[in-house]
Amino acid sequence: MQSLDNLATTFQNYLDKHYFDGQPTALYEPVNYILSLGGKRLRPLLALMGCDAFGQDFKQALPVAMAVEVFHNFTLLHDDIMDAAPLRRGKPTVHTKFGTNVGILSGDVMMIYAYKFLHQLENKDLLPSIYEIFNKMAIEVCEGQQMDMDFESRQDVSLPEYVRMIEFKSSVLLAAALQMGALVGGATAADAHHLAEFGRHTGIAFQIQDDILDTFGDAAKFGKKVGGDIVQNKKTFLVLKTLEIAPPSVGADLRDWLTQTTDNQLHEAQKIAAVRAIFETSAARTHAENAMREHLNTAFSHLEAIATFSQAVKNYFRHFAEWLIAREH
Amino acid sequence: MQSLDNLATTFQNYLDKHYFDGQPTALYEPVNYILSLGGKRLRPLLALMGCDAFGQDFKQALPVAMAVEVFHNFTLLHDDIMDAAPLRRGKPTVHTKFGTNVGILSGDVMMIYAYKFLHQLENKDLLPSIYEIFNKMAIEVCEGQQMDMDFESRQDVSLPEYVRMIEFKSSVLLAAALQMGALVGGATAADAHHLAEFGRHTGIAFQIQDDILDTFGDAAKFGKKVGGDIVQNKKTFLVLKTLEIAPPSVGADLRDWLTQTTDNQLHEAQKIAAVRAIFETSAARTHAENAMREHLNTAFSHLEAIATFSQAVKNYFRHFAEWLIAREH
Repeated sequence: MQSLDNLATTFQNYLDKHYFDGQPTALYEPVNYILSLGGKRLRPLLALMGCDAFGQDFKQALPVAMAVEVFHNFTLLHDDIMDAAPLRRGKPTVHTKFGTNVGILSGDVMMIYAYKFLHQLENKDLLPSIYEIFNKMAIEVCEGQQMDMDFESRQDVSLPEYVRMIEFKSSVLLAAALQMGALVGGATAADAHHLAEFGRHTGIAFQIQDDILDTFGDAAKFGKKVGGDIVQNKKTFLVLKTLEIAPPSVGADLRDWLTQTTDNQLHEAQKIAAVRAIFETSAARTHAENAMREHLNTAFSHLEAIATFSQAVKNYFRHFAEWLIAREH
Repeated sequence: MQSLDNLATTFQNYLDKHYFDGQPTALYEPVNYILSLGGKRLRPLLALMGCDAFGQDFKQALPVAMAVEVFHNFTLLHDDIMDAAPLRRGKPTVHTKFGTNVGILSGDVMMIYAYKFLHQLENKDLLPSIYEIFNKMAIEVCEGQQMDMDFESRQDVSLPEYVRMIEFKSSVLLAAALQMGALVGGATAADAHHLAEFGRHTGIAFQIQDDILDTFGDAAKFGKKVGGDIVQNKKTFLVLKTLEIAPPSVGADLRDWLTQTTDNQLHEAQKIAAVRAIFETSAARTHAENAMREHLNTAFSHLEAIATFSQAVKNYFRHFAEWLIAREH
């Protein structure tokens, strides 16, 4: 298997080579802008890894890698408009810098370009399967984003619904990147499916871990403010698990805290400490950690099901998943 | 060839059968809403006609017909947000009824569904060509919309740029509908291209005629207020042609009128009459009528180039184009 550094460098060169220089400039400038903001390029790496793992030259999967990165950035662009987010990776969001109308339209054209990149695959026989996977994934991502918006105003969100939302909103794209990469790499449909399931469950584990770290993490390592979800009254895995399993009085206590807006540092610190304590005593934290680990184990079991994978390849994906979850990047 | 009524009824049944009943409801309700607002269903009809003309059962092209109708309505939905339009076909626009965020996201999912419908074509061997045509068209539609937005604030728009904008913003979709339908119908790539060019030039002729009728049309027949473009200071074919060919003093006179906001009925009537007179004396009206007729003739010449078409089929498309231009629908 190729080193991640090698995959990342090759992808970055491909991205640079496919600078959007079309007309009108007003349409394509925001596309280049958001793609230049960086990020981990996780999804394109997964596409390249999926191809590499089945013994094909990973460069064959570069069009798929580009498609998933462009699609991912399209979702970030439109999500930022919907969330009225001022910043993305520390820089002004597209709609802040270029206006909402241009943001909507540049996002639209990015989604079409994602399909156009898929079309550049050398092996055209793969296109029907690739498009089918991509369509299904893209629809689920939209459904996940709508669920997320719906949940904000709903008081009766269940934990399974929440897990479905994080799965749709983010894990299906990791799964599809691996699956499409695997098909380009010559995998059977069954093996590509197993690699997709590895990606899906790793993604769900990652999101649950995100909820845990936001509340219990080490601020330096996590890279964002710890307790942010609590301050913003977010319905996370920890909240929904508590409401599911804790006695009614504890649930009421939690609901009470999560209707409060904190107006000073002291109040905020008190709220974070109190809610954290509820998560500990309700055992929601333990449940979340177990659920995270269970999804990771399911992910690994799908690796085991791929008969053509050597132990080295399995270890490569295992380590990648563990590294991702541990936020050591 | 099938009657338009038969094609329209079959398409409407297909559309009804493909009601969007997915979850979350908040995402799909606006999709059903905008698709239920009706309209001429011109683009799906063209796809079905394209297939029928080459002797295949037109029902084979229903997935393409659905894809172009869903795509077209996605563009209407997002354009209405960008234009802050309150009404669409006399009913509240999606963003007015459901909110802007839902509007953005429902539009996004419609675009993906357009691809998903294409995927339902029975003959999967056609998919690579079909997707390629669709991608190119969809990118051009976005570019056309951006040009249109750019032109609002630009004072130096040339007539060729304007024609390019109307071509991209609307004609390429008519062309692609016919071209994809033709391929499903078994046309050669060359014949499908000729039918696409017929659609493209008919579309441009239609848009130029639209500019003419907005200023010189019969209100009862045209179906919207005559003089609206003048009142809104729009840069139409007539305006840009006048600025191109009229003496500087006439151009200055026109520019002067087109910076005025009319504050009463009398002023508005005076403005419309004055600008109309400029278009007549500058011969811009005649030029526009000639350009419209020239595009229609180019469209017809592409019909003649299709060797497999009988005279009856050629007449069918000619009459369709004339009927479209004459607004007798």
